[in-house]
Amino acid sequence: MKFLEKLKNSISTNKSNVCVGLDVDLEKFPKHILETDDPIFEFNKAIIDATKDFVGAYKPNSAFYEAYGIKGLESLKKTIDYIPKHIFTILDAKRGDIGNTSRMYAKSAFYEFGFDAITVSPFMGSDSVSPFLEDEKHGIFMLCLTSNKGSQDFQKVESGENLYLKVARKSKEWNNLKNIGLVVGATHNKEFEEIREATDGMPYLIPGIGAQGGSLEFAVKYGGKISLINSSRGIIYASNGKDFAEVAAEKTKELRGQINEILG
Amino acid sequence: MKFLEKLKNSISTNKSNVCVGLDVDLEKFPKHILETDDPIFEFNKAIIDATKDFVGAYKPNSAFYEAYGIKGLESLKKTIDYIPKHIFTILDAKRGDIGNTSRMYAKSAFYEFGFDAITVSPFMGSDSVSPFLEDEKHGIFMLCLTSNKGSQDFQKVESGENLYLKVARKSKEWNNLKNIGLVVGATHNKEFEEIREATDGMPYLIPGIGAQGGSLEFAVKYGGKISLINSSRGIIYASNGKDFAEVAAEKTKELRGQINEILG
Repeated sequence: MKFLEKLKNSISTNKSNVCVGLDVDLEKFPKHILETDDPIFEFNKAIIDATKDFVGAYKPNSAFYEAYGIKGLESLKKTIDYIPKHIFTILDAKRGDIGNTSRMYAKSAFYEFGFDAITVSPFMGSDSVSPFLEDEKHGIFMLCLTSNKGSQDFQKVESGENLYLKVARKSKEWNNLKNIGLVVGATHNKEFEEIREATDGMPYLIPGIGAQGGSLEFAVKYGGKISLINSSRGIIYASNGKDFAEVAAEKTKELRGQINEILG
Repeated sequence: MKFLEKLKNSISTNKSNVCVGLDVDLEKFPKHILETDDPIFEFNKAIIDATKDFVGAYKPNSAFYEAYGIKGLESLKKTIDYIPKHIFTILDAKRGDIGNTSRMYAKSAFYEFGFDAITVSPFMGSDSVSPFLEDEKHGIFMLCLTSNKGSQDFQKVESGENLYLKVARKSKEWNNLKNIGLVVGATHNKEFEEIREATDGMPYLIPGIGAQGGSLEFAVKYGGKISLINSSRGIIYASNGKDFAEVAAEKTKELRGQINEILG
C-alpha cells in the first residue's frame, strides 16, 4: 500500500488523528511492569492492547530505546512487530546524513525494523533526504518547525526567508512519490498558517500539545484531516498504577473526541 | 580526562590527525571475512589492529550498524570496547531532538556504548544540543557546513546570514565546558576560512577529502593541529583482498604523512 493511502486508512479505520508516542522510560513505569523480564515490551504491549482501536498511528522515539542499549532496541523490534499491521507506524529518529549513509538509515527503519515512516532532519539537504523517498510504500515526516524553544535559534531568522519556510517549499519540490509529510509544532500558530499555505494537502505530524502548551484547536485547524496530533507523556504516563493502560486508552479516546469535535 | 585533553592526547600520541571512519558494508568486505561468525567485528578488529598506532581517532557511523539491525549494533558495541582506551572515539550519528530526548541519545552514546564524542545536528537549536554538553568528559562535533552537495540547500543562503555561520557563532556561545567541535567539509574552502575566523581554537572534524574531492591542503590549513581529517572508504576499502588491513594501515600512514608535511 502506498504511503499516503496507508496513513489515510489508518486514520479513518479508528476515526482518529491521535498519534501515540511510545517514549519509554523505566523511571516512569508502574512498579509491577518493572518486575517482568522485558519491561519495555510489556509496557508497550499493554498500551497497544488498550489503545489500538482509538489511535491513528504509533510513534516510538528511537532515543528512548537506544538509551537502554541493545536490549532496548530488541524491545523496540518486538514492539513494532506487535503493532497490528493496519496501523501506521513512525520511527521518530530525526535522521539525515550524506546519501549513502541515509540509505543505511532507511534500510534500518523500513526493512530491518519495518516502520512505515521515519522523521528526518533536513539540515544536510536534498541528497540526505532523497534516499528515504525512493520507495512509494515508505516515507518521511521532515522537521520543518519544531515545537521546542530552540526552534527559535535556526528555524526562524530575523531577516531574509525563514528556514522553516524554505524547508516547506523544498518538501513540495521533493514530493514526487507523495511520501513526504512535515513536522510542525503546535506551539507556532501564525507560522503553521504560512506552512499550510505553502504545502497544502501534505500530512503534518504535530507535536507540542500537552506538556509543551501548544493549542489543540490551531493544530487541528491547520493540520486538517490527514494529519497526526502526537501525545506521548500525556497518554502513556497519565497513570503509573496498575490501571496505566486503561487510563492511556481513556486519554486517547478523550483526545480523539476533542479532535473530531474540532474537525466537525 | 576532559574532552579536549583526550582529543589532544590522542592526536599527539600517534602524531596523527587522521580519523578513520569505520563505515562497515558487508558488500565491500573481503570474502574471507564474510565466512566468520561476526564479520563486522572481525573486519573492524583487523582494521584497528593494523592502524591503531597511526590514527588520531576512530569514527564509526551509526547508520552502517543500524542497517544490520540488532546484530549490527552488537558488533558496534564489541568494536568500541575493542578500541584502545587512549584513542579518541566519535559516534557519527547526527542526533538532535527536544531536550529530554537528546538526553537519551547522550546516555546511549556516552554511557551505553562508551564514545568520547557524538556528531550532533543543530537544526532544533540550543535545548536539543545542551544535553550532550553537560559533562566535561564528553562532547560533540556539531554539523556546521557539511561536505555534500545538499549543503547548498539550507546551510547557505542567498541573502542574509548563512546558516553555517550562525551555527558557528552559536557553538562559541554554547562552549562553556570546551567540549564542542564543528563538522566542516573540506569541500568548502572560502567558507572554512570564515568559520575558522568565527571559532578559532575549536577542533574541527573534516570529512570530504578523497571520494568527495575536497582539498587536503585547505583542510589542514584551516583545521590546524587539533582537528581530525576523516577518511572512511579511502582507507578501509583500499583493498578487498586478504591484505585489506595491511593496506588500510599503509593508507593511514600515507595520509598522516601528508597532513604532517602540510602542518610542518
